[in-house]
Formats: sequence, structure tokens, C-alpha cells
Amino acid sequence: MIAVDARRLLGRIRELGAIGRDGEGRLTRLAASDTDKQGRDLFVGWLRQAGLDVAIDRIGNIFGIWQSAGNAGKAPLLIGSHIDTVIDAGIYDGCYGVLAGLEVIETLKASGLSPSRPLAVAAFTNEEGVRFSPDMMGSLVHAGGVDVEAALAAVGTDGGTLGQELARIGYAGEREPGFLKPHIYVELHIEQGPVLEREGIPIGAVETLQGISWQRITLDGVANHAGTTPMSMRRDAGYAAARVVTFLHDRAAASNAPTVATVGTMRLEPNAINVIPSRAVFTVDLRDPDEQRLQAEEAALAAFLQRLAVEGIAVTVERLARFEPVVFDGRVVELIETAARKRGLVSRRMTSGAGHDAQMIARIAPAAMIFVPSAGGISHSPREHTEDAELVAGANILLDVITELAELEG
Amino acid sequence: MIAVDARRLLGRIRELGAIGRDGEGRLTRLAASDTDKQGRDLFVGWLRQAGLDVAIDRIGNIFGIWQSAGNAGKAPLLIGSHIDTVIDAGIYDGCYGVLAGLEVIETLKASGLSPSRPLAVAAFTNEEGVRFSPDMMGSLVHAGGVDVEAALAAVGTDGGTLGQELARIGYAGEREPGFLKPHIYVELHIEQGPVLEREGIPIGAVETLQGISWQRITLDGVANHAGTTPMSMRRDAGYAAARVVTFLHDRAAASNAPTVATVGTMRLEPNAINVIPSRAVFTVDLRDPDEQRLQAEEAALAAFLQRLAVEGIAVTVERLARFEPVVFDGRVVELIETAARKRGLVSRRMTSGAGHDAQMIARIAPAAMIFVPSAGGISHSPREHTEDAELVAGANILLDVITELAELEG
Repeated sequence: MIAVDARRLLGRIRELGAIGRDGEGRLTRLAASDTDKQGRDLFVGWLRQAGLDVAIDRIGNIFGIWQSAGNAGKAPLLIGSHIDTVIDAGIYDGCYGVLAGLEVIETLKASGLSPSRPLAVAAFTNEEGVRFSPDMMGSLVHAGGVDVEAALAAVGTDGGTLGQELARIGYAGEREPGFLKPHIYVELHIEQGPVLEREGIPIGAVETLQGISWQRITLDGVANHAGTTPMSMRRDAGYAAARVVTFLHDRAAASNAPTVATVGTMRLEPNAINVIPSRAVFTVDLRDPDEQRLQAEEAALAAFLQRLAVEGIAVTVERLARFEPVVFDGRVVELIETAARKRGLVSRRMTSGAGHDAQMIARIAPAAMIFVPSAGGISHSPREHTEDAELVAGANILLDVITELAELEG
Repeated sequence: MIAVDARRLLGRIRELGAIGRDGEGRLTRLAASDTDKQGRDLFVGWLRQAGLDVAIDRIGNIFGIWQSAGNAGKAPLLIGSHIDTVIDAGIYDGCYGVLAGLEVIETLKASGLSPSRPLAVAAFTNEEGVRFSPDMMGSLVHAGGVDVEAALAAVGTDGGTLGQELARIGYAGEREPGFLKPHIYVELHIEQGPVLEREGIPIGAVETLQGISWQRITLDGVANHAGTTPMSMRRDAGYAAARVVTFLHDRAAASNAPTVATVGTMRLEPNAINVIPSRAVFTVDLRDPDEQRLQAEEAALAAFLQRLAVEGIAVTVERLARFEPVVFDGRVVELIETAARKRGLVSRRMTSGAGHDAQMIARIAPAAMIFVPSAGGISHSPREHTEDAELVAGANILLDVITELAELEG
């Protein structure tokens, strides 16, 4: 059984993770920034060292392609993720999947075998969406979900456009986005959630990616004196908001489904200790891997808000974002399970609660994801951590899945 | 039956209410400000016109005293309230009670009768507490509740001390606070709440003033990804806070007592749409006219918070303020009811939900309050309104109560 070079993989994860540190040691490589350029340069150098063809498209996605005269006409197997980061990031989110992809290709290349179709690794631009909106932008453009010109015109939090910034750092490529149409796409990623660690399971075979519904809700009641207004005469927007919070939470918690509901932001007006709130503004984040259930959650929320309206609370709802769930390719998910079993690793089917480039590429090719445990479920933090052995195990499962799909010939 | 001069009273309320308007017509006479000086000057002018002795104490409280050689040694009947305002105020809060007090004394003086003891009207300094803390400061100092030096050292929101500001506007008087010990104190005020208007009752005989318990509560849970953290693995501080809000509201609403509970402020951390709140900070305002019930409310809250702690939410409670309820003098309350009945006006006994100078003076003398309706329960706003006829009716009840207490001799 072949295996990835664990030292090389782990060394590269640490080396890339050392780039973009500020004076206090905080890691930040926002999309198309100077530090992103440094990370990209390092990655492209490794692609060239590995003898891969490097291609960069107009949205800055980087591809390392291993192809031969014999298979160059076929759709490649694509492994991908991203190497941009959030502010004060950990070293694994995205980078692990990209560097494991490179590792798998190098390992197979060194084996002396020939795949029936090209193998490629991709680092997609601006997955995090911190500097430019929306997130998962490079893979979205690759999948044809948004026009490349519109994406390049996105204005960053610091004023410049993505197009200007990509040109400035030398990563405004010439290839048309989508030039590489994958035969199958596989993404390896840290879970960013607590499930695998809690259950002591090393491999997640990700079969779905949750649909997301984001809404901003404004409730308007009547401000009044907290001391002189009897409870029966109040129209307390803060109390109404609290009822929505408990309704959503209790409903999701009581469900047997993996539905999650979160109210992450809340603002009261006038926000004074002795004034009944006239207004509450809060956000609702609903997620479910099943579109019918997600719609049912939205409908239940709408019905609850309607009840508040009948009670004299004015309700305003803004839709902020809505993505349908993604169902990954069943055959690839089975390959992941089989690979884990062969290596004696327990796996479980699961849902991705976070968004990933795989959900975009799933629009144009069969796709699936492999998860490894995240300590404490933590990500987007310097405390993000996965054990070395778990990282290597995940990369070997990726290797096995790609090996199976590549129909290697001796 | 004698009656106040309605035109004079209403005219003075409007005239005083015209002082302290900014370019946009907003009324603001913060304590010891230039506009407060203008209001004080106008009021003192009216006191002198009425032939009253004017006395000003070191905390700036203004007294207009009608006494004669025959009654000068006796403790006076005191009528009072305040003429400082909040920012963007209405014209009735405080001013109505002070000007009605002057009106009552002028009316009795003009009647040719002689009271058995002096009559006095007081305008207490800094009742609103907007510029200097605490509120109800002048009456608190008068009642000996806080040392005058400490009160004068209070630093305003704009940097100067109350002592400096009173000296600057010419209202740092020479009398020692408390020099005038009232025989009985009566305060006439707009309700600042909706009860009288809703019930169509013109006169409130205020028998109690609610106790107040203010607390700031901080709940600490664990921040986590809103998409990847199952409901069963959350320690959501925002959800815990919402449970406190609904618990307090529902408990107070279900009670037969006049208990009120308000959560007026709320802040979540990190306050991001897709992050489970790690922290919620909110205030609790509990009020009840009965001390035992108020303590029971506090205990119920503490028990609920203890339940949250058992569930893994860290709880921090800060006491911000605590005042025991005030029980006004039963005989004066009965006099108010009798006076209303004699004038054919419906009255009801009630609780004051707001704080008033009367609660401070009640420490040193029998006291009670008379309320008139506030349209919509609104105060501390330009929309504060009471009908002229209601204002005049309230002043006549005050006249009747003072007449009864004054043991007039012809």
C-alpha cells in the first residue's frame, strides 16, 4: 500500500503556515494581499518542483496539472481547496487540502504508474471572503456561478478591487475561468466542527453540505418607561426577539434532524436600562442538509413572526443569503468509506456545516469531501488544531480515493 | 369652593417650557446649566412677585415660603418637585408640580385666610440626573441621604462639578440643606405611565413608590461555528440570555402583583451572524411597590441563573442600584381621595413606577403624591402631554389637600 510522504506534507503545512505572520505572530493571508502573494509564490514553487504544469486563470485560481501525452485530452481528477486565510487564522483550514492534493499527485507521480486521466490540484482564490465578497469566489467563478468581470470588480474592505489587487501581486492569470472541467472533484478539509473528535472517528465521508438561510429580522414595538408601564400594556421588542431566539433554538434542539439555528447578533433600541426596547434587530442563521427541512424551518420562523405581528409587533425580514444544500456524489462518498475501511480507520457519513469550494465545483462535476477531526471543533483561530497522525491519515485516504479513480496503469 | 387661577398656571407652564429651546426647538434644561439658570430666574421672579420669601440652599434647592409672624415657628407644609429637564424634554415633568405649588400658595394667599403653619414650594436641584449623578439629588441632600459636599463634588458629563456650576450660574445658596423640615410634603406630577389615561381616571392618589432593583448580568458560554456545531453541543450565551428575558417577562406578566421586569439593554459577543455567542451582557430592571415581592423576584432570577450555571453557562451578576419601595403617608393619601370625591372626580390609588423627589422627602416627613394622566404614558419626550383641564383639576386637588392641612383661619 503506497502512502504519502508524511514529513513532506507536514513540513509544507508548517512552512506555508509561517507566511503572513505579523509582529505578534498572528497569521493573516487575506485574498490578493501581499502575504497571499507570498503564500502563492511558495505554493507555485512547490508545483514547479514537482514537475507540474502551472496554470493561473483570470480570477487568480492556481492549478498544478500532471498530464501526459497519453491522457492530456481527458477531463482531469481535481483535488482542491484554498490557501487564503481569515484574520488571525490557523494553519490548516484550506491549506491542508491543497497541500495534501499536491502530496497525493507527487506520491503517485513517484510511484512510476500512469493515471488514465490528468491529475490536478487547485488553490481557489478568496474562499474566505474576508476582504472581498462573496466567499468561495474563485470556485464559484470556476463553476460559472458568477461572471469573472463582476467578481474582479468586487471592492475590498480596504478600497481596491480584486482585479487590481490580483494584477498588483502578479496573479491575474490569462486562462479563462472554467478552462479545466474536472471529471471528479475531491476536497480534503478539517471538519471545523466537533463531531469527529467527540465520537473519536478519524475520517468523515461528507455526503452533503448544509443549505444556509441567513435573515435579518427587525421587530418594532413601543418604547416606554420601564417603571410605569404595566406588563399588560407593553409592546416590548426585546422580549419579542427573545421569544424568537428561544423558539428557534428549542425547535432545532428538539428535532431529530441535523438542523442548526443560531441568533448570533442582537441589537436593542434605545438600549437603555430603564426603557422598554422599541426595536430589536437580530440575525438568524438556519442550516440543514435537506432543502425541504430548511424550507420548513423558514416557514416555522415566518409563522412565529406572524404571531408576533398579530400581537402588535411590526416585523421586517431581510434575506441576506440563501444557498440550497449540496448533495455530494454517492459513488465518491462510498470510495472514501471503502478507503477508510481498508486502512482500518473508522469513518462516518456526515454533513458539512461550513461552506467549501466543493459546493461550487459540485455544480459542474461529481464531488465529495473528506473531513478529519478539528480539536474542540475550533477553526478560524490560532487554536485550530488537528493531530499530525490525523492529517496524514486523511491524506492517505485522499491518496487511495484518487488512486482508485485514476485507473493507474503500470 | 375656591379654585386655582387656571390661566395663570397654564400660562406659566408654557412660559417656563419656552425656556431652554435650541435652534430646532428642542427643550433642554440640564441641572445647573445656562438654560437651567434662565428657568430658575423666571421661577424666582414669580416667587418674589407672589410676595414669598425666597431661600436657596447650598445644593441649589429653591424655596418660596409664605409665613407670617403668627406661624413662623411651625414646620411648613411643603409642595415641591423640580424644574430641571432631560434632553429634548416635555414641558410638564416636574415643572407642573412646582408651578402648581406656587399657584396653590398664591391662591390661598389671595383668599385672605391665614394658615396655621407656613406654606412653601420647592424646586429641587438635579432631579433628572442626566448631567450629574445620582438623580433626585437635591431632595436626597435635603433629606440628609447624602452629604452636601459629596453631592457638590459630583462631576458632570461635561467635566465640571455641580458645585462649580451652581456657583457659576448664581445658585450656590447659603442655607444648609435640610434647614426647612416639612410638616407634610405633597407632590403633584404627571403619571409618566399609561394607567390613568387607559382607565379614564383623572386623579391618582399615589400610595407607594416602587422599589427598584437594577442588575447587570454577564453570561459566558462558548463561541463556535454556527454551521458545524450541533445543537446538543452548544453553550450559547445568547440563547441563555433570551431564556432569562422570557423568564422574567412571563413571570411578571403572570403575576397578579404590579411587578414589572424589563431587559432594556443587550449586547452579544462576538456578535457575528455565523458564530454562536460566547457572551451576552444585559441589564435587568425589576420594580415592585412591595419589598418582600421585590426580594422574591430577585431570588427567582438568581435561581434561574443558577440553573444556567449548572448547564455550563458562567454567570456574573453586578448590582447597579437598589432602592426599597416607599410607602407614602396613609392620611395624606386619604385626603387626596376625599378631595377628588368632593370635586366629583374619580380617583384611584396607585403606585409610582418612576422615582420622584417625594421618595426622598418621605424619609423626613409624611408625604404623598397626586398624579394626573399622561397621554400615551409618554414622558421624557416632546410628545409628553396632559390636557389643560386635567392639569387644572390636579392643581385644584392639590389646593384642596393643602387647604385641609393648613387649618386656615379667617
